[in-house]
Amino acid sequence: MKMKAAVMTEIGKPLAITEVELAPPQANEVLVKIKATGVCHSDYNALFDETTPIPTILGHEGAGIVVEVGPNVKTVKPGDKVALSWVPFCGTCEFCQTGKVNLCESAFGPMFAGTLLDGTTRLSKDGKQVYHNSLLSTFAEYTVVPEMSCVKLPDDMPFAQASLIGCGVATGYGAAVRAAEVRPGSTVAVFGIGGVGVNAIQGARIAGASKIIACDLKDQNLEIAKKFGATHTVNVGEVNAAEALKELTGGFGVHYAIDCTGNTHAASSAWQGTRKGGTTVVIGAFNPKKELALPAGGFHRVGKILKGSFYGDVHPFRDFPIIAQLYLEGKFQLDELVLSRIQLDEINQAFDSFHDHSCANVGRTVIEFGGK
Amino acid sequence: MKMKAAVMTEIGKPLAITEVELAPPQANEVLVKIKATGVCHSDYNALFDETTPIPTILGHEGAGIVVEVGPNVKTVKPGDKVALSWVPFCGTCEFCQTGKVNLCESAFGPMFAGTLLDGTTRLSKDGKQVYHNSLLSTFAEYTVVPEMSCVKLPDDMPFAQASLIGCGVATGYGAAVRAAEVRPGSTVAVFGIGGVGVNAIQGARIAGASKIIACDLKDQNLEIAKKFGATHTVNVGEVNAAEALKELTGGFGVHYAIDCTGNTHAASSAWQGTRKGGTTVVIGAFNPKKELALPAGGFHRVGKILKGSFYGDVHPFRDFPIIAQLYLEGKFQLDELVLSRIQLDEINQAFDSFHDHSCANVGRTVIEFGGK
Repeated sequence: MKMKAAVMTEIGKPLAITEVELAPPQANEVLVKIKATGVCHSDYNALFDETTPIPTILGHEGAGIVVEVGPNVKTVKPGDKVALSWVPFCGTCEFCQTGKVNLCESAFGPMFAGTLLDGTTRLSKDGKQVYHNSLLSTFAEYTVVPEMSCVKLPDDMPFAQASLIGCGVATGYGAAVRAAEVRPGSTVAVFGIGGVGVNAIQGARIAGASKIIACDLKDQNLEIAKKFGATHTVNVGEVNAAEALKELTGGFGVHYAIDCTGNTHAASSAWQGTRKGGTTVVIGAFNPKKELALPAGGFHRVGKILKGSFYGDVHPFRDFPIIAQLYLEGKFQLDELVLSRIQLDEINQAFDSFHDHSCANVGRTVIEFGGK
Repeated sequence: MKMKAAVMTEIGKPLAITEVELAPPQANEVLVKIKATGVCHSDYNALFDETTPIPTILGHEGAGIVVEVGPNVKTVKPGDKVALSWVPFCGTCEFCQTGKVNLCESAFGPMFAGTLLDGTTRLSKDGKQVYHNSLLSTFAEYTVVPEMSCVKLPDDMPFAQASLIGCGVATGYGAAVRAAEVRPGSTVAVFGIGGVGVNAIQGARIAGASKIIACDLKDQNLEIAKKFGATHTVNVGEVNAAEALKELTGGFGVHYAIDCTGNTHAASSAWQGTRKGGTTVVIGAFNPKKELALPAGGFHRVGKILKGSFYGDVHPFRDFPIIAQLYLEGKFQLDELVLSRIQLDEINQAFDSFHDHSCANVGRTVIEFGGK
């Protein structure tokens, strides 16, 4: 079928709004009509990344309606409202079979290659292959995605809000609820108030944390954090973060720290600011040239846990419907994350605006494709 | 009462075998007749440590018979066979009340001060105060200890073997069973084959690990490791430890690594040698001047857990009877840890021999006080 899409044809150049071909879904694949897609900073980064296969259709935050399913698809049917998940998984490796689909062995090969799970593409233009992005390529009217990347949501879930679930929302929520396993009455610090951090705050709030301490370098981000549930804030540029966390928790430190900064110093501070037996979750991607250095004195004695977490340890099939339900019950803030709504034709302006408006790290511009 | 004890009267000098006074047990304290006590390398270190209060009676690995109990003691009665635990706990702080007695808030104050939990001593000589060590001071015919440091064992448990439970044995066992939570069929690496390491190997064996890989610089230690259950060995002075662990586990890395070395480089290797989602437990005390440096690249993506553990996360009341029962059923090797048996008068020779025999790190000289 023919459809309109925003195609990356050159590194750093505006996307071309053009017509491309989409082949039908194969086994275990689903054809989805995209209704909304978030424009994530990662898309902007991919545009300047020399490892991005070209031409490609970016976009990895999406929601839509199932149009057609390939052979063997069991979990969705035409007409279902679905959210897409940015981390693919095979469903059959040891990690998938033990519930850790976020660690799937098969995820990164096709992701970096720009294909679907079987190593081929469904996208083309004028007979030439066009690559997928995160196996989703949501900057288009339609997409073919793996069944495992496509999660059924309640019928009354609005598309714009649904489109944001499968990236930063799930990651942040999962960081608090799944990776840190925040418990009621506990104290939580969240380092780095961006698209992941605010949702880690929401996860901690929903899990019943008594104190949620937002830590960031920018006061404006700390103000945003309060809107999502932070009870206290620490400007880590002004005070020693670990000491501040101890002061706010009777000298002990927090039960849980979640580092969303991607900064090794911040992660070390987060670890130092947890109490004995406390848990620090590192959710941000560090610079691979760095080392994460922790003070060695008394390391064993304090019994702390440091945990790397990819995609917040979420399982999309388990967690997306929970997040959607929490939203529908008024318990999870997604409306606040939809900063503006545009049409696909306006996508290059959305990219341009990443440097302009202060809330770009927290909220999203959402591209809509006709109606709710 | 008067009793014979080995008293440290000066730093680095031989212990004085002499008569001291022991006051009766106060509330929540127990008078124990020592029947066996292990001579640990930590005792030897304490002899050269300027922070050790003087005069003091060292010794923190002990077993004996309850002679008398102070007011409020509920868990033991005269005649009970008991093992002593080297880490005191109060039983009432948040950590104790939530089962993490190894992280007790009250443990270290009196431990460093050389007193019992109430800040006073029961030991004296010629009217002058003598300090306790680890609230136990087992290099003596009798001792008064906190009830919480004193665990009832089965009547048929031999004293020499029982005396070793409450230090390296419990720490190593706990590192595998409680801190790492080794599961049947899993793969485990143990770094540092000493008094803790061999018991981590035993814990992993008892928990049903399929591969137990001993890692050490010395081939003779690796040979000892095999006697306690290691299925594979890696001389980390000869090969890259993390790579070797991956080779032995189909390219993945081990499910669990337990670092008993106290060396930050070894701990980092252990972490690097675990698989995605794997757990590394740091049980050894690092040099406080160092940093534990972990490679930052992909830290979040691999979803690994790094956990400091003090005393192997054991709860003496829960774990000592389990270890004793496993020994009595022939499933836990303690006989092999009793290298020689001496009398209290010979303690200085035992100290001298720390530099002589190669197995001093793994087994123990046990001082016995008459019969089994």
